[in-house]
Amino acid sequence: MRQSNEPASPPGDGGLIRLRLDVCYDGTDFFGWAAQPGLRTVEQMLQDALSTLARAEHLRLTVAGRTDAGVHAEGQVAHLDLDAARWHELSDTALRRLNGLLPGDVRVLAITVAPPGFDARFSALWRSYRYRISDADFGVRPLRRRDTALWRRALDAPAMHAAAQRLLGLRDFAAFCKRREGATTIRTLQRLDVVRDGDAIEIHARSDAFCHSMVRSLVGALAAVGEGRRDADWLAGLLELGSRSGEVTVAPPHGLTLVAVGYPSDAELAGRAEQTRAIRVSPG
Amino acid sequence: MRQSNEPASPPGDGGLIRLRLDVCYDGTDFFGWAAQPGLRTVEQMLQDALSTLARAEHLRLTVAGRTDAGVHAEGQVAHLDLDAARWHELSDTALRRLNGLLPGDVRVLAITVAPPGFDARFSALWRSYRYRISDADFGVRPLRRRDTALWRRALDAPAMHAAAQRLLGLRDFAAFCKRREGATTIRTLQRLDVVRDGDAIEIHARSDAFCHSMVRSLVGALAAVGEGRRDADWLAGLLELGSRSGEVTVAPPHGLTLVAVGYPSDAELAGRAEQTRAIRVSPG
Repeated sequence: MRQSNEPASPPGDGGLIRLRLDVCYDGTDFFGWAAQPGLRTVEQMLQDALSTLARAEHLRLTVAGRTDAGVHAEGQVAHLDLDAARWHELSDTALRRLNGLLPGDVRVLAITVAPPGFDARFSALWRSYRYRISDADFGVRPLRRRDTALWRRALDAPAMHAAAQRLLGLRDFAAFCKRREGATTIRTLQRLDVVRDGDAIEIHARSDAFCHSMVRSLVGALAAVGEGRRDADWLAGLLELGSRSGEVTVAPPHGLTLVAVGYPSDAELAGRAEQTRAIRVSPG
Repeated sequence: MRQSNEPASPPGDGGLIRLRLDVCYDGTDFFGWAAQPGLRTVEQMLQDALSTLARAEHLRLTVAGRTDAGVHAEGQVAHLDLDAARWHELSDTALRRLNGLLPGDVRVLAITVAPPGFDARFSALWRSYRYRISDADFGVRPLRRRDTALWRRALDAPAMHAAAQRLLGLRDFAAFCKRREGATTIRTLQRLDVVRDGDAIEIHARSDAFCHSMVRSLVGALAAVGEGRRDADWLAGLLELGSRSGEVTVAPPHGLTLVAVGYPSDAELAGRAEQTRAIRVSPG
């Protein structure tokens, strides 16, 4: 009964099939992605709904970006492994039924059978985030207040953009990271654009991966430049610190949205998963 | 102490100055614009804040578009008359202080001294509204769910747009209006565009004025065309009815946003206010 575009099950996996979920959520009323006992999290909400749908227990999700409390997602990606026979019973109606089981602040945009070797976390080539700030006199436009942070002083977006370009490339972003034991703070920042959008400013950041609080720290540092309190040399100098800087403010979570996650072509996937896993677990 | 760009006070008005307020709000938690005893309304919230700011009682606001419960605004316009001397004390800090007195779901974008003859309601040349519908399988994107209505069936946006063009011009929109005693249902519909925006559809409507529930009724009728249940001839035929049609569904309020209100140049304003008032109060 297997469809032609689905992978052959590897030997010994009990006939499991890997599903990719594309997910978006309004993070306002969530304590972030990762399940924590007694807290309302996106992961727990999805696992509960998937368990009900598939009449299966102990379903585990692997996610591309573990967003913090209050952070939103437009293009989060996760995977889970499910009994293949069960999936074939469900597949036609799964998307509508799953969304019917979920509250309005989280939606599953698509459920697809993942290509061979796909891993939502380790296959990802890049993650892109958007941060929205309003520096308008009047505050934040009401319909955007859930995903836009208020800045009390006027910001110079072109100055922020120019300074941001000095952070691009393969760097040690320790100054912008909450250090975690054994984790590297070396990342390749591919894009850091600052653009004005009417009375708000949008900061678009793309990297192979981000360490914890990195985007919000980059935004805090860029805002110091935008206010004129700091200059581009100060910003670039932070890269030399090698450890978290007390001079960098962490911008509030609700301005941040995970926009998209990039993956290689199906053919390149299997090799990529192994390669990334090897790099990421090496001592920092 | 009067500034040069402010109008001379007409004789006998006790030195009042007319202020224009540009306002936006998230209508989700409001019972609409118009003040009603015991209910949370935008008008009441603004009047209370303005009274506190100006230390004045009985301030009255006149508004361009009296939005219903749940309807939003990005570019609502209102005016009020205030003691000129009081305004000169306040003007430098008024915007920040007023917004400081208001909750986050309503913002005053600007307060300006109105040109001579300006009336937020009677001077308006046109109002424009946007209605957002998602017809996606997964429902409504969480960050847009406050201003986007869900439609359960797929909609054909080009078919809706083509049919909509037959409603343009000076017409009797009685089929789309909740009739009110002595009010005309004749309006000039200047624009009715239906465009797809990713997984949502946006309907942009512009008219000299809209009667009650008119945009939401137009959307309901267009959606019937978009589903393929009705055709463009049926839609155009509604204009011949001369009274409210039971065949037209009124789309839910939260998809609707008042986007902008257009006014004539300062020189044309005074004449326009008189002209509109004369037309609008004539028997239907």
